[in-house]
Amino acid sequence: SQNVPITVARGDGIGPEIMDATLKIIKAAGARIDIEEIEVGEQVYLRGVSAGIEPSAWESLSRNKVFLKAPITTPQGGGYKSLNVAVRTAFSLYANVRPCVAYHPFVDTKHPGMDVVIIRENEEDLYSGIEYQQTPLMMESLKLISRPGSEKIVRYAFEYARSNNRKKVTCFVKDNIMKQSDGLFHKVFDEIAAEYPDIENEAWIVDIGAAKLADTPEAFDVVVMPNLYGDILSDVAAQIAGSVGLAGSANIGEGCAMFEAIHGSAPRRAGQNLANPSGLLLGAVLMLVHIGQPEIATAVHNAWLRTLEEGIHTYDIYAEGVSKQKVGTREFADA
Amino acid sequence: SQNVPITVARGDGIGPEIMDATLKIIKAAGARIDIEEIEVGEQVYLRGVSAGIEPSAWESLSRNKVFLKAPITTPQGGGYKSLNVAVRTAFSLYANVRPCVAYHPFVDTKHPGMDVVIIRENEEDLYSGIEYQQTPLMMESLKLISRPGSEKIVRYAFEYARSNNRKKVTCFVKDNIMKQSDGLFHKVFDEIAAEYPDIENEAWIVDIGAAKLADTPEAFDVVVMPNLYGDILSDVAAQIAGSVGLAGSANIGEGCAMFEAIHGSAPRRAGQNLANPSGLLLGAVLMLVHIGQPEIATAVHNAWLRTLEEGIHTYDIYAEGVSKQKVGTREFADA
Ligand SMILES: CC(C)[C@H](C(=O)O)[C@@H](O)C(=O)O
Ligand SMILES: CC(C)[C@H](C(=O)O)[C@@H](O)C(=O)O
Repeated sequence: SQNVPITVARGDGIGPEIMDATLKIIKAAGARIDIEEIEVGEQVYLRGVSAGIEPSAWESLSRNKVFLKAPITTPQGGGYKSLNVAVRTAFSLYANVRPCVAYHPFVDTKHPGMDVVIIRENEEDLYSGIEYQQTPLMMESLKLISRPGSEKIVRYAFEYARSNNRKKVTCFVKDNIMKQSDGLFHKVFDEIAAEYPDIENEAWIVDIGAAKLADTPEAFDVVVMPNLYGDILSDVAAQIAGSVGLAGSANIGEGCAMFEAIHGSAPRRAGQNLANPSGLLLGAVLMLVHIGQPEIATAVHNAWLRTLEEGIHTYDIYAEGVSKQKVGTREFADA
Repeated sequence: SQNVPITVARGDGIGPEIMDATLKIIKAAGARIDIEEIEVGEQVYLRGVSAGIEPSAWESLSRNKVFLKAPITTPQGGGYKSLNVAVRTAFSLYANVRPCVAYHPFVDTKHPGMDVVIIRENEEDLYSGIEYQQTPLMMESLKLISRPGSEKIVRYAFEYARSNNRKKVTCFVKDNIMKQSDGLFHKVFDEIAAEYPDIENEAWIVDIGAAKLADTPEAFDVVVMPNLYGDILSDVAAQIAGSVGLAGSANIGEGCAMFEAIHGSAPRRAGQNLANPSGLLLGAVLMLVHIGQPEIATAVHNAWLRTLEEGIHTYDIYAEGVSKQKVGTREFADA
């Protein structure tokens, strides 16, 4: 079958190293892809380009509709529009899917049975970017929650649960305080849950839900929530599963998708052949499924697990009784 | 010395049981207080009274300026103004202090070294309650962050650290997205931190900060943050320290304060002599310090620890090798 064209950005900080490792691994596994590289991020921002993406890069994204993105660095100093948010909203990538899985016993974790998928609304909420300075002393940010936006993400969560053989979808909101906005999200959740009698559903106030997620993640399966809660709690869930460094994420829209690691560009670790490529690699695994090459995805995932099983690991992770050989980014990829 | 008049609300659900237990314990320890009881909560809401507080109860609060409050139940069905938020804003209780401490080995925890105090801004943020229905399909909630509000809470956090011999204050914000509102909070944090060279300071983006807090709470000391993050992350921190059922909280204003458990009214456990009074009791311990009876506070805290040490515990907690005798609310209080 034909190669699938994908747009790739090597990013900043540790980005280039983990992208090189990721591409090497998936190509070795036989991924049928044609890579079109774009430059985005820090240097582009510093040239004064909005959101750190040149027009020609936007064209590549529009053409290929599949984007594998390494972490980028936003320059210090403010006024820079988030690249992630710009791509998510430009292509209506409304669903951010973040599997947070324990790889026990190959990665140390206090929650060996954990297997949670966080499905984060990805376009609305406080990510609207609408803020006012009412007076020099008072700032205001807008949180927006719409019915169509809530319906899309909640339906996505139930469809995801059904097609991935998952038993339960949980909703997190704070509708005892945000009765209108989070209230609408909750109401939509209840309506759509009723259309899926085969899938269990429950809703938690986000404070106590987050506490339970951090303490007993085994009690959750698929969890759907508005954008900002999803941002915070997917980092929490990924970290307690093993490490934010191991989590990949899929940003899914109608005909377009972006795949990434959930962690940042870690500039202080850059250029030292230290970084763990696993987060981006698992993002690439989600991409391979998305472009219809699930057998390659499985091969990559198994090879990755096998490497950990053999005790080969980067500096940032460890497993008692399993870890044998600490290696660099390149050596990990080769293994 | 003279008795201090305090206003007490026994609340709903498990409220009356844990309040009776708490008052019995602190009186037995010699607390010099005169109790004025008010009725607030579910029944008052159902009589149509705003925020579930009668005018006469507001008068008691205004007079006594110290409020020990059991959890209450807000009736189902929406439209009810939060009692907690009403009291916090009416009396400008701007600082919500939530110690999240591991009581290892007397309570099971995965984080035995944990000793974090979350200082949550308590008047602003998305708790403004200002929401609009822009169209039937679009809801908007306002997040408000002010300079005076941020200055008050950040200064409180550094003063708290100094007077409690704590070494570090950490700030959590999401100012890469909310550049104006969270940006202001962060800016104020940096300004005020500079006035306290004796205390270490650091700021984290709330997503990765929350992940680190959930995974390595031992790395934190005092953590200050806007209202909603504080709501969510204090539940997370209390739960991983042992249980949300063990955390008390102080809501502090200029000349007025409210003390409570951070958990809810658990209606399904009510009236069965099951509930753990520890959260409210530790709230009362904070109250005793506040009203100038620290020796009573210490006596109560020690008696409580001693009871756990002897293996006496309520149904909701357990400690391997320590727990011996599961008892009810009343028996726990008697012990
Ligand atoms: C970089 C930042 C804007 C982004 C977000 O907040 O969504 C990141 O934290 C993420 O989770 O992908
Ligand atoms: C009951 C609710 C309004 C309250 C809050 O959100 O502040 C509670 O969760 C708390 O943390 O005290």
